[in-house]
Formats: sequence, structure tokens, C-alpha cells
Amino acid sequence: MTEREDDIGFAQTCGFRTVSSGGGRATVELTATPAVQNSSGFLHGGAVCALVDHAGTMAVISADRASRPGVSTDITVSFLAPTPAGDLVTAEATVLKIGKTLAFVSVDIRRGDGVLVAQGRMTKFQGG
Amino acid sequence: MTEREDDIGFAQTCGFRTVSSGGGRATVELTATPAVQNSSGFLHGGAVCALVDHAGTMAVISADRASRPGVSTDITVSFLAPTPAGDLVTAEATVLKIGKTLAFVSVDIRRGDGVLVAQGRMTKFQGG
Amino acid sequence: MTEREDDIGFAQTCGFRTVSSGGGRATVELTATPAVQNSSGFLHGGAVCALVDHAGTMAVISADRASRPGVSTDITVSFLAPTPAGDLVTAEATVLKIGKTLAFVSVDIRRGDGVLVAQGRMTKFQGG
Amino acid sequence: MTEREDDIGFAQTCGFRTVSSGGGRATVELTATPAVQNSSGFLHGGAVCALVDHAGTMAVISADRASRPGVSTDITVSFLAPTPAGDLVTAEATVLKIGKTLAFVSVDIRRGDGVLVAQGRMTKFQGG
Repeated sequence: MTEREDDIGFAQTCGFRTVSSGGGRATVELTATPAVQNSSGFLHGGAVCALVDHAGTMAVISADRASRPGVSTDITVSFLAPTPAGDLVTAEATVLKIGKTLAFVSVDIRRGDGVLVAQGRMTKFQGG
Repeated sequence: MTEREDDIGFAQTCGFRTVSSGGGRATVELTATPAVQNSSGFLHGGAVCALVDHAGTMAVISADRASRPGVSTDITVSFLAPTPAGDLVTAEATVLKIGKTLAFVSVDIRRGDGVLVAQGRMTKFQGG
Repeated sequence: MTEREDDIGFAQTCGFRTVSSGGGRATVELTATPAVQNSSGFLHGGAVCALVDHAGTMAVISADRASRPGVSTDITVSFLAPTPAGDLVTAEATVLKIGKTLAFVSVDIRRGDGVLVAQGRMTKFQGG
Repeated sequence: MTEREDDIGFAQTCGFRTVSSGGGRATVELTATPAVQNSSGFLHGGAVCALVDHAGTMAVISADRASRPGVSTDITVSFLAPTPAGDLVTAEATVLKIGKTLAFVSVDIRRGDGVLVAQGRMTKFQGG
């Protein structure tokens, strides 16, 4: 499942690499290649948001009783530090709660030097 | 400026096309090609967030006295409707306020049939 | 319904006054009395968030087929301008979408001089 | 400072009690009295947002080199579980980053039984 999600569409376009997922947690890596940089040469904020979405979804899939990715209703991201060109960032996603209909997941994204790049949260509708 | 921003890094990767920008407003299009779809074949939520960022930034650049893109501090996005594969979505960004140090911009994203796909908001730090 | 919601618990504590509600829209007023000020004498950010919640909920009730207030899953608020002590602010809430299970509402809060004080968004779970 | 902030305006109106603050962290309690309930008798979402604001601000004050509360630019809150009438909730705020101009703080709110009621995040402008 993990590899499959990474190899499809936008996840593949961005270059997300799921290192591990299970029990409501997921770890996803991204390298700040030119394809995901902004016009100043740093990792694009939109790519950071997409990473929050992907890592959060991998964590939710791992926690849902039917391995459903759900449908996002809300994403919020705060940006704390820039990521220079070429750097690797790691997203750690943790499911805060998952029920029959709603899931909540928090995601921390850090650079290789440990600096917190962004913190995001996502809410998902898991089905009626 | 408009074309240049579209032709760089992540904006080019996603396929954003800035139709117009000026006076604190910007219109940006995106087609839901396979490159920006999720594993269910719909437009990826992360690509929607990236579009909020790009359209919002184009609007901020057009309103800033020194045409600065600023640095995002926060992005929030609510997802109201899915976008089927191949559909075109249009983001309309409007600067709510821009001062010396902070800018706030709101973004509506609609499908060709007028349905509101997402609404986002972004806060930017424009410099000290 | 409108008056009843204003006269209960936290809405009454804050002093919210619903001017009108219907068809997915609501207008709610709040005066920046000492009871809702922060330690600097301006309208407290938490009171602004509460106003987003109350006005948004009134709009959702007016649009829901069974007049249900729903249960909030997410609130986001951006603060654009301060509100001096004693000033009146008016919240205009607009339902963006309401379905069987989810509702989305946007809220603009303005001072008497027309300045946008805050913009918020709320997502509600309306039931299974 | 801690007691002073609790005894002013909206913080006093809501009944926030700062248990401790220091080194970028703060713990604040709130009892779900009738004054902060919604029309269903649970703790009002707006009061939860206000608690995120107050606890986050106490944490920021404790970390700022000049003990400044800053000015909020953005608050986001996800609501995970309801708080029944009369229950006590505890907010734990942690500063994620504080610099010369911006501060970011995350807040977890839990019931007495340990259940996570809400998770919020706040961004503050600390001055030019």
C-alpha cells in the first residue's frame, strides 16, 4: 500500500517517499529538488502543504479499520523555517483521533538539522 | 512577472497558468491532469493547497509596493467538492489587507460548472 | 430560534446579538465591552473566534433542512485589524455549502468604519 | 503576570486559571460552567478557541525576551471530542518557535479523563 500510494499521480510528481507507516503514524521524506522549489530556490510552501496531506493520509490509512484514505475537509499549515535547495525534509504524521466518520491527524516536518519547518493538521471525513 | 513565476519550479511542475493579476487580485488556472491527481483519480488536495499558495502569492505580488512575494506564515484550506480527472479549475485570489509587514489573501477555487471546490486563506510576512 | 441562541450560555456571556438570519446567512453584532477585551483594552482574539463560531452556527441553522446547529470540526481565523474598546463589530456569515453530513461557512467581521477586523471559516459535521 | 492576565477582561469573563507558565510553556484550566456552555450544554467551541488563545499567549509571554504578548495573526482549532457540563479541561501550550518578529505556539486541550478535546495553533506578530 505504501509504495503504491507513492507511485501515483501527485505523490509521484512531488517525489514523496514513505519510509514507514502503521498504527496511525507515518514517516515520509521529500528532497527539495528544483521540481518542488519556489522562485527563491527554497522548498515551495505548496509542496509543504502537499507533504502534510500525503503523510497525514498515509497515517490515516494505517489507522482506519478498512484502510480508507478518507476525504479531506480541512488542512492548516504554519510555516516556521525555510528549507534550502537540495535539503531533505521528513514529515512525521500522527493520528490524533479516528472514528467511524472523522479522522484528525497532526504532522511535523523537520529538516535534517532538526529544525521544525512546518506544522500542519488535517481533518478527514472517513465515510457515513 | 506573471509568466516568469509560472515557469519556475513547483508552479511549473503543477502546471499553474496565471490568467491575470493586478491590483491585489489574481486568476490562476489548473487542469486536473494525471500529474496532479490523487490515487482515486481526482485533483489532489495537496495540489489544491499549492494552487491557493500560488494564486494568493500572485495577488500579493501585484499589491505589494515593491512587488515582493513575501514569506507565508499560515495557509488554511477547506475542501468542499471533488474535481474529476481532466477538469479545469480556476482560482480567484483577493488580497484582504496588505501593510508594511503583513499581507492576508483569500482564494476561491471553482470548477468549470461553477461549483466551489475549495476556499483558502494565506497570511504572509512581507518583511521588517 | 435566533433570540433563544443569543440568550444561552456563552453567547449571552459574550453579548452576541443576532440581527438577522435566514437562507444560509446571518448577521451578528458584538460591542467591545470590558467583558470581551484583552489586557491591552482591545477586543480579545478569543471573543472574535467565538463570534465566528456563533455567527457561522446561526447561518448553518438557517440553512440546514432540520435547523441543526451541527458539531464544529474546524475553525480558522485570521486577524487583520484591532477593535478599540467600546467599538461595535458586525459579523456577516455565509454558508458556502451544506449537505447531509457537512457544512462550510465563511465569516467576515467588520468594524463600524468598514475595516475588516477578521475573516474566519468553520466546518461542521451535521450528522450521519 | 500570570495572575494579572487571568484577572482581566475576557480571560476573567471565561474563567481561565493559569496553573503555570514559563520557558515557552503554559498550563491553563477551564471549568465548563454554564457561562461557557453552548445551547446543548457542552463547552462552547468559541470558549475552546479563546482558551487556545489565552494559553498560547501565556506561553508566548513566557518565552518572549521582553515578555510581550504579541498580536495574533492566525488561530486554527480542530475539535475532537465534546466536553460535558461541569467538566474541567486543561490546555497545555508549547511555543514551537519564537523569533524577533514571529511566534508560533501549539495547544492541546484535554478533559480530566485524558481525552483530547481540541488541538489548536496560533501565530503571533511580536513586533517590528
